Amino acid sequence: MSASESPSSTATLLVACDDCPGLVAALAQALYNQGANIFHAEQHTDSVAGRFFQRIHFEDPELEGPDREAAESRLLATVRAVGARYGMKWQLRFEERPMRMAIFVSKTDHCLYDLLLRHRSGELLCEIPLIVSNHESLRPVAEQFGVPFQVFPIDSKNKAEVEARELEVLAENEVDLVVMARYMQILTENFIGQFKERIINIHHSFLPAFAGGRPYHQAFDRGVKLIGATAHYATGDLDEGPIIEQDVIHVSHRESVADLVRLGKDVERTVLSRAVRLHLESRIFVHNNRTVVFTG
Amino acid sequence: MSASESPSSTATLLVACDDCPGLVAALAQALYNQGANIFHAEQHTDSVAGRFFQRIHFEDPELEGPDREAAESRLLATVRAVGARYGMKWQLRFEERPMRMAIFVSKTDHCLYDLLLRHRSGELLCEIPLIVSNHESLRPVAEQFGVPFQVFPIDSKNKAEVEARELEVLAENEVDLVVMARYMQILTENFIGQFKERIINIHHSFLPAFAGGRPYHQAFDRGVKLIGATAHYATGDLDEGPIIEQDVIHVSHRESVADLVRLGKDVERTVLSRAVRLHLESRIFVHNNRTVVFTG
Amino acid sequence: MSASESPSSTATLLVACDDCPGLVAALAQALYNQGANIFHAEQHTDSVAGRFFQRIHFEDPELEGPDREAAESRLLATVRAVGARYGMKWQLRFEERPMRMAIFVSKTDHCLYDLLLRHRSGELLCEIPLIVSNHESLRPVAEQFGVPFQVFPIDSKNKAEVEARELEVLAENEVDLVVMARYMQILTENFIGQFKERIINIHHSFLPAFAGGRPYHQAFDRGVKLIGATAHYATGDLDEGPIIEQDVIHVSHRESVADLVRLGKDVERTVLSRAVRLHLESRIFVHNNRTVVFTG
Amino acid sequence: MSASESPSSTATLLVACDDCPGLVAALAQALYNQGANIFHAEQHTDSVAGRFFQRIHFEDPELEGPDREAAESRLLATVRAVGARYGMKWQLRFEERPMRMAIFVSKTDHCLYDLLLRHRSGELLCEIPLIVSNHESLRPVAEQFGVPFQVFPIDSKNKAEVEARELEVLAENEVDLVVMARYMQILTENFIGQFKERIINIHHSFLPAFAGGRPYHQAFDRGVKLIGATAHYATGDLDEGPIIEQDVIHVSHRESVADLVRLGKDVERTVLSRAVRLHLESRIFVHNNRTVVFTG
Repeated sequence: MSASESPSSTATLLVACDDCPGLVAALAQALYNQGANIFHAEQHTDSVAGRFFQRIHFEDPELEGPDREAAESRLLATVRAVGARYGMKWQLRFEERPMRMAIFVSKTDHCLYDLLLRHRSGELLCEIPLIVSNHESLRPVAEQFGVPFQVFPIDSKNKAEVEARELEVLAENEVDLVVMARYMQILTENFIGQFKERIINIHHSFLPAFAGGRPYHQAFDRGVKLIGATAHYATGDLDEGPIIEQDVIHVSHRESVADLVRLGKDVERTVLSRAVRLHLESRIFVHNNRTVVFTG
Repeated sequence: MSASESPSSTATLLVACDDCPGLVAALAQALYNQGANIFHAEQHTDSVAGRFFQRIHFEDPELEGPDREAAESRLLATVRAVGARYGMKWQLRFEERPMRMAIFVSKTDHCLYDLLLRHRSGELLCEIPLIVSNHESLRPVAEQFGVPFQVFPIDSKNKAEVEARELEVLAENEVDLVVMARYMQILTENFIGQFKERIINIHHSFLPAFAGGRPYHQAFDRGVKLIGATAHYATGDLDEGPIIEQDVIHVSHRESVADLVRLGKDVERTVLSRAVRLHLESRIFVHNNRTVVFTG
Repeated sequence: MSASESPSSTATLLVACDDCPGLVAALAQALYNQGANIFHAEQHTDSVAGRFFQRIHFEDPELEGPDREAAESRLLATVRAVGARYGMKWQLRFEERPMRMAIFVSKTDHCLYDLLLRHRSGELLCEIPLIVSNHESLRPVAEQFGVPFQVFPIDSKNKAEVEARELEVLAENEVDLVVMARYMQILTENFIGQFKERIINIHHSFLPAFAGGRPYHQAFDRGVKLIGATAHYATGDLDEGPIIEQDVIHVSHRESVADLVRLGKDVERTVLSRAVRLHLESRIFVHNNRTVVFTG
Repeated sequence: MSASESPSSTATLLVACDDCPGLVAALAQALYNQGANIFHAEQHTDSVAGRFFQRIHFEDPELEGPDREAAESRLLATVRAVGARYGMKWQLRFEERPMRMAIFVSKTDHCLYDLLLRHRSGELLCEIPLIVSNHESLRPVAEQFGVPFQVFPIDSKNKAEVEARELEVLAENEVDLVVMARYMQILTENFIGQFKERIINIHHSFLPAFAGGRPYHQAFDRGVKLIGATAHYATGDLDEGPIIEQDVIHVSHRESVADLVRLGKDVERTVLSRAVRLHLESRIFVHNNRTVVFTG
């Protein structure tokens, strides 16, 4: 969004459908007829899957007009019509209503701080109605940033019940996105199913290497010369979800496991924040357990 | 280009014009009406300069039909019409006719080898009708790859005359792009003017740091912890042309000037090859001495 | 330092002298005779300058014995004797007494947060007796971390006088290291002279490119494809001091100046923290305006 | 080695033994007494394994004297004495006799070219007495560089017999190091056993991810955002040997498998060449299937 753009008149459209000629023209024409002005469009055709993906970031001046509701409805109707014609999966987000993000944490604070600081400095356009934890440890951090903090202790017996209460709280807070910022609990398939492609997890290895527990210990034992982190959508298969973002740093024989943990924190927080930002800006599609990420 | 695409039916359109509503729709519609199918489109609006840039990679089945010449003419007429309506600067390249690239070298061979190997393995889609040098040294390399090699010795007095003959040879060979692969001569403004935005040079520093001669010596003296390389279009102002690509690597106090030269070669060849590839695929615009590079 | 090492018995010796045979043996033997055990030694010979540098990290069990003071004196006497024999410049730091670091800030908080968080998590072994600023803005951050915050407003007329008071406060607090964490004032030569090679500044460009003010604006105007940051010791020549650490990230035509500022913050804080850590661990020598940095 | 050093008087000593006090002093003193001058020493203590490693690069002027053989013998005797005292595993290499490296290839040429070009430019200090292949394809490359090329076709039945002949040829050529530069055959345990820690292989993924065949296909299917390469010593367990060097590059949804193969070639050749260089300079120890790599 350039300096002159106003959040109240801009929106982002994501569409995915089977590839066929004329898609780009049809969408551009429909928006143009509606009076919209395209700021940026990015597209991808997965020629193996025969699938077309497009993200269109545009402005519709009528959204700032006297009857916003009517303007939104007209836009939705326009997109619905094109979408129906081509069998599109689509999503339209108005920038005036940023997503609402809940952060789940345990005891480690580096990812939480990173998200809160970037949010405060305006890098992450979202609302953060609450932080959820299974421990009290990070309450002071939440308080520093004025974000409500709710603790749900979990033991081997109460997980289903606790998750049910967490889901209630997320619903009450109209949460769109759950970010697991080094939350050390495995969510059940039921929970994940209710936030399909809306739960981002950070795993502290360059997946698929070192899936499962204690990845830095595994990395040390294998003697790798790189350590990394992977942000992915949570799915029922642990550490197998679609990958959004990954990065690594070089290490050597000099680093102990403790050093790897320390160095890895920098990669974890960077990778997680980048993935969250991409999601908040509606830049990610998921297809066949792979992501299409528009960064242009 | 995906596996199913055929070079004989594909083309790339570049357009640049002042920004206004409807540009994306107008271009997409015009190509669609013509029977073309857009594989990929990428666009950028420079909101400071108020300038719109788009690259459209598309297929027109009629280009493979019985009358290719007529199909090309129709496409050109279509683009010309839209272009005139919006005051566009535009360029249409048919993939069936790859660019023709001349490589200028002196005595250093790493960039030359890199370009020739990538060309032979199909990474650089172009023809290489000749290699030009002011020395005999690299003739054996040219011969290994079966590329004509012409030597034009240069001294303080004959530069204008030599360049005139070089320009003749380039014209005879219908050269589209000149790549200075560590060519240690400064071209005159006259020469550069005849290949505006079609001469790529590699400078062995992360410009604007260490412009001018002996950049690795300068880097050593300043004690930097990074060395790099910059590929840019040649202009009359030495080392001041629009930057296409840059990269760096980390160095330490352990490296002597000779080490910097050795390590730098890897960055130089990588950066130069990337820039050449971007140019050959018609991915670069120049505006106000800055480049817009579409990598999507 | 490995897990089994105890800060109360370890020390680090830095020596620099003209190169000659036998230096490594002389130092190793002297420490061995004293009962010390070398954990790690790293050395460098600058063959251009004919200069030898070594960092020795070792343990002396007597430092944990009944008479620490006597043990320290014996070690100092040992080093002094070898040092005198070879004309060495040397420095001996006992880990039991970490350095004391003052952080200077203005209004930007990302570097400050990064230093405070890393300090709290144990990554930066030092004490932080105070934060100095020319503005009130960041007092809440200092308070969250329980660090005293002193404000010294500066205008065009009072700089000499303010610096005099700052120097007093630094002396009272026995400060060893001053870190300019985006402190937007130029220190006078007098101030710098009193903390020679003990003031670390972060400049938001890959120096020597874009020295001086507004480096991101300069970078945008030049159209570079990399932006970076440089941590260096402050000297009387602005942005010309010995470079400790540098890094860059890739950018494209898509980034506005505001984007560069945002993206650059990540590089700035990482580069500054690395440089501070290197200094706190006594890993840096300065010679001829270049640094020798032992990272092994 | 600095400019003033002469290969004929320099040597490199590698030692590994259980950690105990006085090792550094003992080695430095022994070499000093012998008249040697240490250019560079690097050490590492693996505190988990209680193991000490050191690499010492030094000059002994007597090696250039009238009786080189006697000088070598004296040095060997000195090292043998210290080694016996501390139970050291050690290795002493005289730079006058560079290693002899055989390159094994199949049909892919990028790693082969990279090694041959770096060898010719003086980056890899070794002799290359022969290239071995199971195909004729790359004979012209070998011929361009004047290196003997021997073909040993392999089928399902003749592997043992062919390897026996290959081992003979390696012995005849006094080969110290075998480099598998994308050699598409699995060596038997017998072959590997005869070149323990002297066979370097390049695997085209960031191991342990995507071990086994077709790693780029695996990477594409998993949708990773990084691809990489790993150079390791070959062991009986395929892709499980000690890792010497790794690197990665970023990729996106845009890359097809063919693109990954193309982009990966750059990482493969860089990683392999770095590993080979480290081995040729006697910078690598192996312990517990991990490497200690001295890069200082």
